[in-house]
Amino acid sequence: MLTLPGELSAVNGIAGAYSEHVPICHIVGMPNSTSQKNGLLLHHTLGNGDFTVYSRMSSFVSEATTTLFDPHRAAEEIDRVLRTCWLRARPVYIGLPTDIAFHRISDERLRTPLNLSLPANDAETEAEVVREIIDLMYASKNTVIIADACAIRHRVLGELHELIDATQLPTFVSPMGKGAVDESHPAFGGVYCGDVSREDVKRRVEAAELILYVGGLKSDFNSGGFTYRVERRNTVEFHSDHMKIRYSTFPGIQMNQVLRRLLDTLDPARVRTTETPVVNNVIPPGELESDGTVGKDDEITHAYLWPRIGQWLRERDVVISETGTSSFGILEARFPAHVTHISQVLYGSIGYSVGALQGAALAVSEQSSSPPQPPCRRVILFVGDGSLQLTVQEIATLIRHRLTPIIFVINNNGYTIERMIHGMDAAYNDITPWKFTRLLDVFGADPAKSKSHQVRTKAELEALLGDEQFSSCPYIQVSPPKFSSS
Amino acid sequence: MLTLPGELSAVNGIAGAYSEHVPICHIVGMPNSTSQKNGLLLHHTLGNGDFTVYSRMSSFVSEATTTLFDPHRAAEEIDRVLRTCWLRARPVYIGLPTDIAFHRISDERLRTPLNLSLPANDAETEAEVVREIIDLMYASKNTVIIADACAIRHRVLGELHELIDATQLPTFVSPMGKGAVDESHPAFGGVYCGDVSREDVKRRVEAAELILYVGGLKSDFNSGGFTYRVERRNTVEFHSDHMKIRYSTFPGIQMNQVLRRLLDTLDPARVRTTETPVVNNVIPPGELESDGTVGKDDEITHAYLWPRIGQWLRERDVVISETGTSSFGILEARFPAHVTHISQVLYGSIGYSVGALQGAALAVSEQSSSPPQPPCRRVILFVGDGSLQLTVQEIATLIRHRLTPIIFVINNNGYTIERMIHGMDAAYNDITPWKFTRLLDVFGADPAKSKSHQVRTKAELEALLGDEQFSSCPYIQVSPPKFSSS
Repeated sequence: MLTLPGELSAVNGIAGAYSEHVPICHIVGMPNSTSQKNGLLLHHTLGNGDFTVYSRMSSFVSEATTTLFDPHRAAEEIDRVLRTCWLRARPVYIGLPTDIAFHRISDERLRTPLNLSLPANDAETEAEVVREIIDLMYASKNTVIIADACAIRHRVLGELHELIDATQLPTFVSPMGKGAVDESHPAFGGVYCGDVSREDVKRRVEAAELILYVGGLKSDFNSGGFTYRVERRNTVEFHSDHMKIRYSTFPGIQMNQVLRRLLDTLDPARVRTTETPVVNNVIPPGELESDGTVGKDDEITHAYLWPRIGQWLRERDVVISETGTSSFGILEARFPAHVTHISQVLYGSIGYSVGALQGAALAVSEQSSSPPQPPCRRVILFVGDGSLQLTVQEIATLIRHRLTPIIFVINNNGYTIERMIHGMDAAYNDITPWKFTRLLDVFGADPAKSKSHQVRTKAELEALLGDEQFSSCPYIQVSPPKFSSS
Repeated sequence: MLTLPGELSAVNGIAGAYSEHVPICHIVGMPNSTSQKNGLLLHHTLGNGDFTVYSRMSSFVSEATTTLFDPHRAAEEIDRVLRTCWLRARPVYIGLPTDIAFHRISDERLRTPLNLSLPANDAETEAEVVREIIDLMYASKNTVIIADACAIRHRVLGELHELIDATQLPTFVSPMGKGAVDESHPAFGGVYCGDVSREDVKRRVEAAELILYVGGLKSDFNSGGFTYRVERRNTVEFHSDHMKIRYSTFPGIQMNQVLRRLLDTLDPARVRTTETPVVNNVIPPGELESDGTVGKDDEITHAYLWPRIGQWLRERDVVISETGTSSFGILEARFPAHVTHISQVLYGSIGYSVGALQGAALAVSEQSSSPPQPPCRRVILFVGDGSLQLTVQEIATLIRHRLTPIIFVINNNGYTIERMIHGMDAAYNDITPWKFTRLLDVFGADPAKSKSHQVRTKAELEALLGDEQFSSCPYIQVSPPKFSSS
């Protein structure tokens, strides 16, 4: 049986709809089906009697769309759309007329779990694909793996880790693939992002004879501005709906079953590679005093901040990086094991991260409460001062749900990354300087269950990160590190 | 010549796009036209190589859409779309590929003003329409006028006032038409909203023999839940693209020229009506002590607040009422002359009003500065605590532009109007209680150029409204009156 309030706020839904991390089912309340027939002028419409306009608009950004006009087909339609959402890992849209929401229907379909299994690949083609991959792997003296966004979205992380464990092949991630791979694994090689990679990482990847590129998404920001040197002649691409082996494409052959059969068939002893670069959250020497401590009045720099954050992170943390400075900066932090990382540099809407934080923190709190699994996973956001201003009110929602994230506000005085792209001194890249440390108070947080910190120097940041009270996430915390505007 | 920054933030544009008060030209930056041809995966796209998706989505909510792929046609296209925006009083969309934005083109078209004149009505039909209206007006012993939203949107307020002055016919407004008519005019009769009108107003309108209904928009909230007793047999409807006289429709005949010809032809001496109700910001007696003062600890009620606001308003104020409690409450305030009122209960998106305030305050400040016209018009927002939370960050933009509005936050502890509709005790109608009086400080307002006030009783509100420092709008001010949650 399905009942939902007649008038649903779409606001949170829209804020989350472009998170590329998880599929979104976007349910939207709409005028009731009777008024539709009568063409009445209802609020939340354009006043032209057309109540289908939002579902039609949403169809451009949805993998499947339905409007539940017929109660007898509602359950079946919901199942169909949810299944598509899961299998295609993309947003879907369900329109819910207000009168339909109160119909009672049979709960029979709830007794059969949704069939979420992928359709089987054509067996003969799949066998040929795996045979060709294995031939290439046995012939190559130097194979590496790159894991990218769609490896996460399309859920091949289990198979991917089995492959890494079996072969110990050096494994790199893209910016949006960061979090796909256990970075405490000895085979983890760092972030490959074309010409903006660390020099040793770039050299290592581009020297490979064979690249297994899993879940690739070669967008501008995700590929270092289209500087990936992943040449077709030495690459196998694993995708959710096709495979590419060098110059051949295999439409309809999806990677999950290919990886499974590859694992079943491969003899790891015959796979060869060379050394993996070591990426170890080392702070560049110029950032520290000669005795390894930080200077008392040293300004916080990016070169120092991100490896230091890498040292501070713990197993099972959930890390959200806002589009812009944070999503680039986080690439310099090597994660402990089992860290979940949420990033979306393809759609790249700034402000998405505060809503994503709210959703992630709520999910973690629900996972923890039943059954209780202390210690709770920490949920940590890195967001810029400009991006935070777009969606700041979601902090009030976090407070209302008694969630306990840590929010790092990287305050560099405006839309700094936009200044770099266009308009270094333009007024449209300026923002009002906020008093971020007073936000929790204004939004109604209990002073005993919230805390704000301002750190301006490396020494202040060291003191904060070394404070176990801060690091154990007992309550909601906002910590704006202060950067110079340059 | 047109140049615009390559990457425009669409956020403010979207926030304003559904203001129904003024037509909106929504210009959106998009990937450059070269990448479009190459199908590159750029940020701010869906990663499917389709760069037309936003213009196609926007076409559902735009009167005209164009994308400037060809620099040679850009100026002509911009003119075409702007002209449509003005004439149809609806949003339009201009897509601007980033490389096109930097092309230099001839400024020749800038020397010819846009032709914004309406196409002429068919003369013979128009003459017949006016003749029929005049016959009905001469025959009726009791004629009234109702002015509604489209009288404002389609700019017939000049003709409308000439008609009221000439005939002294009792004139009413709808909720969205409030502000169309000079409410200091002796013929002003109040707000007609079907069954939710004041009893004397309702009786007066529904007793009319003939109703001249100008710019009508019979949506749910604007018509008292479809309880308008404006019967076809005694109504003349004036619309932007057609006229209706009793049971006849005249497509393509628009009201502006009909009103002009009516004014030229009508003999006002032959027009008859009866008394107009007097609506005078009188506070209901039960709300005051017997000596006419307010009780010291009296809670602020709606019955008291809105007529009191009506007394406090000044000529030329700009008043913005948020969807919900404020848009209903403001109906009880009779305005002084030349007040501009912004309301939108058709689309009815909560949160629209803070962006609308920012736009209105900026426009007033630009009008005032060249040439200076002291005293500056006051810009005043009435917004609920729930609605404000949706778009609160626009207050920071107001601060950045040094604008000096007064913001009344009607604090009734949550989405109170939604509680009335569905879920009186539902958690989804609760919000975090904010400390509204500290918002200006957090958003970086200069303490010497901003002020916050909290009023909990009628006496405190009286003191505030009586304070000339407050009322003269010297700086930005937030004043949350506190209501009980009931």
